[in-house]
Amino acid sequence: MAPAFKTVGLIGRYKSRDVAEPLLALGRFLAAEGCRVLMEQETAAESGVDAFPAADHAAIAAQADLVVVLGGDGSMLTAARSLAEAGVPLVGVNQGRLGFLTDIALGKMVEQMGRVLAGDYRIEARTMLDAAVRRDNGVRFSTLALNDVVVNKGATGRLIEFIVDIDGEFVYDLRADGLIVATPTGSTAYALSSGGPIVQPGVPGIALVPICPHTLSNRPITVSDAAVIQVTIKHAADALLHFDGHPSFELEEGDRVTVKRAEHVVKLVHPPGYSYYAMLREKLHWSEALF
Amino acid sequence: MAPAFKTVGLIGRYKSRDVAEPLLALGRFLAAEGCRVLMEQETAAESGVDAFPAADHAAIAAQADLVVVLGGDGSMLTAARSLAEAGVPLVGVNQGRLGFLTDIALGKMVEQMGRVLAGDYRIEARTMLDAAVRRDNGVRFSTLALNDVVVNKGATGRLIEFIVDIDGEFVYDLRADGLIVATPTGSTAYALSSGGPIVQPGVPGIALVPICPHTLSNRPITVSDAAVIQVTIKHAADALLHFDGHPSFELEEGDRVTVKRAEHVVKLVHPPGYSYYAMLREKLHWSEALF
Amino acid sequence: MAPAFKTVGLIGRYKSRDVAEPLLALGRFLAAEGCRVLMEQETAAESGVDAFPAADHAAIAAQADLVVVLGGDGSMLTAARSLAEAGVPLVGVNQGRLGFLTDIALGKMVEQMGRVLAGDYRIEARTMLDAAVRRDNGVRFSTLALNDVVVNKGATGRLIEFIVDIDGEFVYDLRADGLIVATPTGSTAYALSSGGPIVQPGVPGIALVPICPHTLSNRPITVSDAAVIQVTIKHAADALLHFDGHPSFELEEGDRVTVKRAEHVVKLVHPPGYSYYAMLREKLHWSEALF
Amino acid sequence: MAPAFKTVGLIGRYKSRDVAEPLLALGRFLAAEGCRVLMEQETAAESGVDAFPAADHAAIAAQADLVVVLGGDGSMLTAARSLAEAGVPLVGVNQGRLGFLTDIALGKMVEQMGRVLAGDYRIEARTMLDAAVRRDNGVRFSTLALNDVVVNKGATGRLIEFIVDIDGEFVYDLRADGLIVATPTGSTAYALSSGGPIVQPGVPGIALVPICPHTLSNRPITVSDAAVIQVTIKHAADALLHFDGHPSFELEEGDRVTVKRAEHVVKLVHPPGYSYYAMLREKLHWSEALF
Repeated sequence: MAPAFKTVGLIGRYKSRDVAEPLLALGRFLAAEGCRVLMEQETAAESGVDAFPAADHAAIAAQADLVVVLGGDGSMLTAARSLAEAGVPLVGVNQGRLGFLTDIALGKMVEQMGRVLAGDYRIEARTMLDAAVRRDNGVRFSTLALNDVVVNKGATGRLIEFIVDIDGEFVYDLRADGLIVATPTGSTAYALSSGGPIVQPGVPGIALVPICPHTLSNRPITVSDAAVIQVTIKHAADALLHFDGHPSFELEEGDRVTVKRAEHVVKLVHPPGYSYYAMLREKLHWSEALF
Repeated sequence: MAPAFKTVGLIGRYKSRDVAEPLLALGRFLAAEGCRVLMEQETAAESGVDAFPAADHAAIAAQADLVVVLGGDGSMLTAARSLAEAGVPLVGVNQGRLGFLTDIALGKMVEQMGRVLAGDYRIEARTMLDAAVRRDNGVRFSTLALNDVVVNKGATGRLIEFIVDIDGEFVYDLRADGLIVATPTGSTAYALSSGGPIVQPGVPGIALVPICPHTLSNRPITVSDAAVIQVTIKHAADALLHFDGHPSFELEEGDRVTVKRAEHVVKLVHPPGYSYYAMLREKLHWSEALF
Repeated sequence: MAPAFKTVGLIGRYKSRDVAEPLLALGRFLAAEGCRVLMEQETAAESGVDAFPAADHAAIAAQADLVVVLGGDGSMLTAARSLAEAGVPLVGVNQGRLGFLTDIALGKMVEQMGRVLAGDYRIEARTMLDAAVRRDNGVRFSTLALNDVVVNKGATGRLIEFIVDIDGEFVYDLRADGLIVATPTGSTAYALSSGGPIVQPGVPGIALVPICPHTLSNRPITVSDAAVIQVTIKHAADALLHFDGHPSFELEEGDRVTVKRAEHVVKLVHPPGYSYYAMLREKLHWSEALF
Repeated sequence: MAPAFKTVGLIGRYKSRDVAEPLLALGRFLAAEGCRVLMEQETAAESGVDAFPAADHAAIAAQADLVVVLGGDGSMLTAARSLAEAGVPLVGVNQGRLGFLTDIALGKMVEQMGRVLAGDYRIEARTMLDAAVRRDNGVRFSTLALNDVVVNKGATGRLIEFIVDIDGEFVYDLRADGLIVATPTGSTAYALSSGGPIVQPGVPGIALVPICPHTLSNRPITVSDAAVIQVTIKHAADALLHFDGHPSFELEEGDRVTVKRAEHVVKLVHPPGYSYYAMLREKLHWSEALF
C-alpha cells in the first residue's frame, strides 16, 4: 500500500548535535515505507546526514506532501512560517518532553509515523497572524507568526505607551511593558505567562494580552480573528517588535503595527490518540492540586 | 413616517419605585411617534402606570416588534431570557449609570429612542446558553442564560470537585469553589471578577472560568460555542447551580450539568453612537493609569 | 538518654480507618524511647487502639510536652487551635503526601521521630488569628484560627458588600464573594487559590485577600499583624463566617467581624532537614516549567 | 514661634519647565516663616530661581532639617536615595495629581507646609533596599533603592533564567521575563502591575514578584526584610538590573545580585490628614465597582 504521503521533507532542530541519529533512523524508515525523502539542506549540513537528497525550504515547500520536524516547539514555529503558504502539512517529533506543537515522542517515532503513513491521522488547521509595521506611509517590516506578535519595551527597559485600534475603532491607550497579540496556538505560549486566557484552537479569535499594564482594570481581551488590530506607538524610549519569540524590529514613536489573520493556515498532522486537552493537562500539570 | 417598530413592549425594573415617571414619559413618547404600546403587566401593576394596555410576557413576545427595558443589566437579562425564543429585539434604558447591556441613559431616552424609531439603530445578535441538569437519566432542571451558568459551592461553603468534559472528551478534574461557564456577554460579569478574560461578543466562544481553583496552573479557557460542555459533580457537601446570578437548583453528587449554545440568540438594538469598546472603557475605567 | 519530650500526646485523623496501625506503631516506639504516651480519647475510641492511657484535649494540653498528629493539614489545624493556649508544641505525620503543616512522611515516621526525641529539631512559632463577631454591642461568636478567617457569601450565592477598617481607619467598601483574612500559614491555603500572595511565616503580617471582587483594581494587601481588622457586613442576602475551612456563623447586616493576632502562637516542631522553601517547591510544583 | 524645621532644602523636578513659579513661591513662604532656604543647585540652574543660596546634594544632606521635593514620585525616589544616609526627612509637593509618595497638592502647598512648619506632621520611616552585583568575587555595582530592584530581560527581549536563594537557602530556579524585589513602598509601583500584592509600609517584608514566569504556579512571595536575597543569573542572552525604574547595569551569566534591607531608612514627613489607605483608594480607584 502506498504511503499516505509520497514525498516527505525532514527538518531538524537548528544547531542541535543530537539530531543526526534519529534523523537517519526516521529517514530510513520513511524510505522503507516507500516515501521519497528530502532532507532540509541546513539540517543535512549540520547533522552530517547525507543519505537523502538535500533541498532548501523552497524546494521542500514545492515538492513535499508532508514535513516532519525533529525538534521542539521553536523548530515547529519556524517550519510553520516557511511552509504555510505552500500548504504543506507538518508533524513534530520531540526529542525531549512533548511540546505544545510536537505530538510525537522520540521513543514512539517509528510506530506513530507508521500509523500516520497508513492514513491514521487527523489534520487540524491553525490560524497564523500577518503583521506589518508602517512608518511614514511605508511598510518597513512584515512577518507571519504562528504564536504571537509582541510589542515590547526595548533595551532601556522603560515602559511604553501605545494605542490599540480594532477595525479602525479606538479601543484603549495603555502604558505597559508591552502587548501580546496571540493566536489560539500562541495562547499557551508567552501570553499564558503574562496572565492571558487559553483559547482552544477551534475558536476564531485573537487574544490581546497586556504585559504589566499600568491600568489595573485592563484585562486580556479576545476579539474576532476577522478583526484588524492596530497598535500605534505613542511614547517609547525604545520598543521592539517580536514574533514567535524572535526580536525583529526596532519600533519608533508613531509606528503603526497592524496585525490580522494570515491568508494561509498551518496544517498540523496529529497522530492517532492526539488530544488537545490531554496535551494541556500534561503540559500544565492539571492533575496536581494544592490540597 | 411610520416608526421602525410598530408595537413596542415596555418592561420596568422589578419592584422599583422610581420607574413610574420615566415609564409614562416613554410610553407617551412612543405613542406620539405612532407606536402601539404594550405595558408588561407586572410593571403596570407595580408602577401604577395604567395609560397603556397591559400584557403578559407571552403576549409581548407574540406581538411586540421591540421591547424597551427601563432598568439595569439584571432587568435586561430577565427580559432577554423570556423573549429570546420569539426573537423580539431589546433595548435598555438605564436609570443610573450605563450598564454593560443598557445603552441609553435616562436623560437621553427621548432623543435616542426617537432616532431608533427613525430607523437609526444597529441590531447585534448575542449568544445565549442552554443548560440542563441530568440525574438518573432524567432532566431535573433546565434554563436559558445570557450571561453565565455557574456551578458553585453551596451553603456550607465547602469546596466542590467536578469533572469537565467537552464534546465527550475529558478536559479536567478540578477542586475549586466553582466554575463559571460564560458567554461573551457574560465575560464582563461574574467571570471577570473571577479572573476571566473579556471575550468580544463577535467571537463564537464560551469561556470556562474556575473560581478559586486548587490547581494553581488551571487557567480560564475559551472553547468554541459549538461545543457541548458537561460538568459532573464528583464530590460536594452541597453545590448550587446559578444562571445569570440566580441561585436555582441544588446539585448532588453525580449530577451532570450540560451547557451548550442556545438555539436562539438575543437581539440587542443599539442606538446610534454605541460602541462596545467605548462601553468597556467607561465601565472598566480604562482611562485611569496607576502612574 | 532521656527523650527531649517526656510526655507525648497522640492525635489521629478524625474518623480515619487507616490510622490504627501507624498510631500503635508510633505509640510503641515512643514508649520504647522512654516517653509517657497519652492517646487522645476520641482517637483511641475510633481507632480501637487501647494500648495507652486515653486523655481528652484538656488533659493533653495540661500534661503533654509534645503532641504528634497523625493526619493531614486539617488535623493539624484542629490540634493547633486546641493546644495553642497551653503552648504545647506540635509535629505532624502525614499518611499521604506531605502537607503544608505535616512535615514527616509516614514511611520515615520512626526515623524522624527518633531524631526529634534525640533533640534534633527546630521549633517555629506560627501566628494565629483571634476573631470575634459583634452584634448589638455583644460578642456572638469568637474563635481562633491558624490559617484564615473568611467572610463569604452564603447559601443563596449572592455577593455581599462589606466595609474594611484597620485600626479604626476606613480602608475600603467592597462588593465581592467574600474576604479572606489569612496568617502567613494560611497564605498557602484558601488565600492562594483566590490569588493571594505567599507570605513567609517569619513576616509579621496578615493578608487581606478579596474573593471575586467587583472592583477590578482591588488587590490583596498585607498589613502588620499588630493591626486590628474589622469587617462590617453592609449588605448581604446571607453571609457566613468560616475559620480554617469550617463554616461556623451566619452573619447579618451590621455585624462586625474583628480579626487580630491571637495572644498565643502555635509552636511547630520541625524535624531535621525541614525547609519551608523546599516544602513550597514540592507542594506548588515549582520545578515544572511551561516551556 | 520658630519653625519646626530650621533649614529647608528645596529640590525641583528634573528638567521641568513649570517648576520655577511654585519653587519661588514656596521658598518665599518658607523664608517668611523663618526658615533658612537652600535651593538644590541643579534645580536652581534649570529653573532660574536665584533668590536663595544654592547647594549641592551633599550640602543639603549635611545642613537641611527637611527637604521639600516639588515633583512627582520619581523626584521623591531620587531625593530619598541621596538623602537617606544623612537621615534628612522628606516631603513631596505634586504639581499634577497626587502620587504614592507626594502627599501635598500644589494648590494646598502653602497651607499644608504652614501646618508642617507649625509642628503638625507625622514622620514615617520607609525601608530601602541595598543591592550589589557580584562577579568573580568583586562587587561591580551597588545601589540603594526605595521602590525596587529588578532583574529583567534585556535588549533582545529573550527570557532569562535565574536562581533565587534566601539567607543561603535555595528557593527556586525560574525562567521568566524577570524578577522584582520590592519594598512595601515599591509594592504599589512596578510590582503591582506585575501582579504583586500590596504590602502596607508597616510590614517589615520584601516582596519577590516574578515577571511573566514560565512556571504558572510560581506566585509572589513576601519574605522578612531581615532576609538576604540573592538572584543568580543562570542563563541570559542579556539581562539588565534596574533600580527604582532606572536601567543601570548589564548582567552576565553567573552574576549574583544580592538584595537586603538598607542600613538607613527614608523619613517621610506626612502633613495632617494624610492616610495611607485614603491614598490607595484614590490612586487605585477603589470606589469604582464593576456592577
